[in-house]
Amino acid sequence: MARSVAAHRSRLTTALVVIVLLQCAAEAAPWFWPAPMEDPYCLSWRVMVEANNAKGWRTVPPPCVAYVQAYMAPWWGQYHRDVASVADQAAAYAAQLVVAPAGGDGLDAWVFDVDDTCLSNQPYYQANQFGAYDPVAFRMWASRGICPGIPAVQWLFQTLRGRGFRIFLVTGRDEETLVSSTAANLAAAGFSGYDRLIMRGSLYRGQSSVAFKSAVRKQLAAEGYRLRGNVGDQWSDLQGDCVGDRVFKVPNPMYFVP
Amino acid sequence: MARSVAAHRSRLTTALVVIVLLQCAAEAAPWFWPAPMEDPYCLSWRVMVEANNAKGWRTVPPPCVAYVQAYMAPWWGQYHRDVASVADQAAAYAAQLVVAPAGGDGLDAWVFDVDDTCLSNQPYYQANQFGAYDPVAFRMWASRGICPGIPAVQWLFQTLRGRGFRIFLVTGRDEETLVSSTAANLAAAGFSGYDRLIMRGSLYRGQSSVAFKSAVRKQLAAEGYRLRGNVGDQWSDLQGDCVGDRVFKVPNPMYFVP
Repeated sequence: MARSVAAHRSRLTTALVVIVLLQCAAEAAPWFWPAPMEDPYCLSWRVMVEANNAKGWRTVPPPCVAYVQAYMAPWWGQYHRDVASVADQAAAYAAQLVVAPAGGDGLDAWVFDVDDTCLSNQPYYQANQFGAYDPVAFRMWASRGICPGIPAVQWLFQTLRGRGFRIFLVTGRDEETLVSSTAANLAAAGFSGYDRLIMRGSLYRGQSSVAFKSAVRKQLAAEGYRLRGNVGDQWSDLQGDCVGDRVFKVPNPMYFVP
Repeated sequence: MARSVAAHRSRLTTALVVIVLLQCAAEAAPWFWPAPMEDPYCLSWRVMVEANNAKGWRTVPPPCVAYVQAYMAPWWGQYHRDVASVADQAAAYAAQLVVAPAGGDGLDAWVFDVDDTCLSNQPYYQANQFGAYDPVAFRMWASRGICPGIPAVQWLFQTLRGRGFRIFLVTGRDEETLVSSTAANLAAAGFSGYDRLIMRGSLYRGQSSVAFKSAVRKQLAAEGYRLRGNVGDQWSDLQGDCVGDRVFKVPNPMYFVP
């Protein structure tokens, strides 16, 4: 009798081990790897943000704070895979473009945004539980110049440089107060060899991101640059005038810039 | 000895049951509900499609065929939750618009695409394992007029009608061969009370979807309609001229229309 109970339990144990292994296999991740925490509600919300269906939101929905934290977790977060996929896509597009050869006119250009495109503000937003935007606290954080680089975008940046594109970094950060910390931060994160870092000057203070960035891109086009691509984490980086031949949206579920 | 082995197995069983329950809890779905099959690679690809980063793809990537099938599974697939989220977002936007009152000019309008916005072709694509587009086979399917309606979009359609919007259905389906089956299919699926069903006539045969749909929307604008919103499953429904004050992208990982 004891034997048969033990045998029954053993079969039950085996069945449960098989269930766990099948579940891991279904998620196509090794058993020691945290499966993506895809809460169905938060997944829908995140996809709506990326597709520009959700606009004007001021904070991450409270039920999704832990979800966004897991999504952006260092190393294994799905965020890093998503950014790498976008970088691969942009590099594949760039690879099939005919670029002016070395010694040519050198006017094939690419635009990158800075915050959460080249440099990550995830440590700052996470420390604030992805709360509402606080311009004073954000400026203090940005002035420290310690934002980590986003590896897949740094790879794309260097790949495009190697292909002969001129690179323009266009950011809504305030020029007067943040120019040196931003330049130093970019250099420390491996973003070197760009053509120009264009920051928001006093003329565009208080204007929308679309207005400021459109004006910058129009100026670049007027100088003769062919904007072949444009990479940003906000749709406001990628809409307006002279957006570029093709735009690439890198994910950002942390905040929305109108 | 046998007892202690049995006790050990019992603890192991308990631990495994706890692991399975915790995993279910982490996925925020009841234990009997299939967790979203979020393969990390296919999830990245799907988000790239929705954000318009992946363009010009001809078929679902082979490793993601089973993933797309699970995503679009009747009832529990994440697809239905995603469409419902977009419909909710569009309804919330519409609710805060000031619409001409009943008896007013009646020119506040909304544009809907048909295929995989109002009517689902999922049975057809699934039967073909989400393979490459075959215009002859697709026309045969469409001419049968048996596409199921997409419930969340049908709800949005009726909500907007109730709010006083004029509804225009704009589809790249061939007018000459598919007008009666499409009209009957829409009626059977609960899409009734729209203003006009505008199909691709001979003038636009062979032209791009963006060119055809832009021309239609320009014509509507010229008639005085204010296009307050536009809903489609393809970015080509939502780009070009007179796209509308706000566009809503419903998910479609099955095919890409340039």
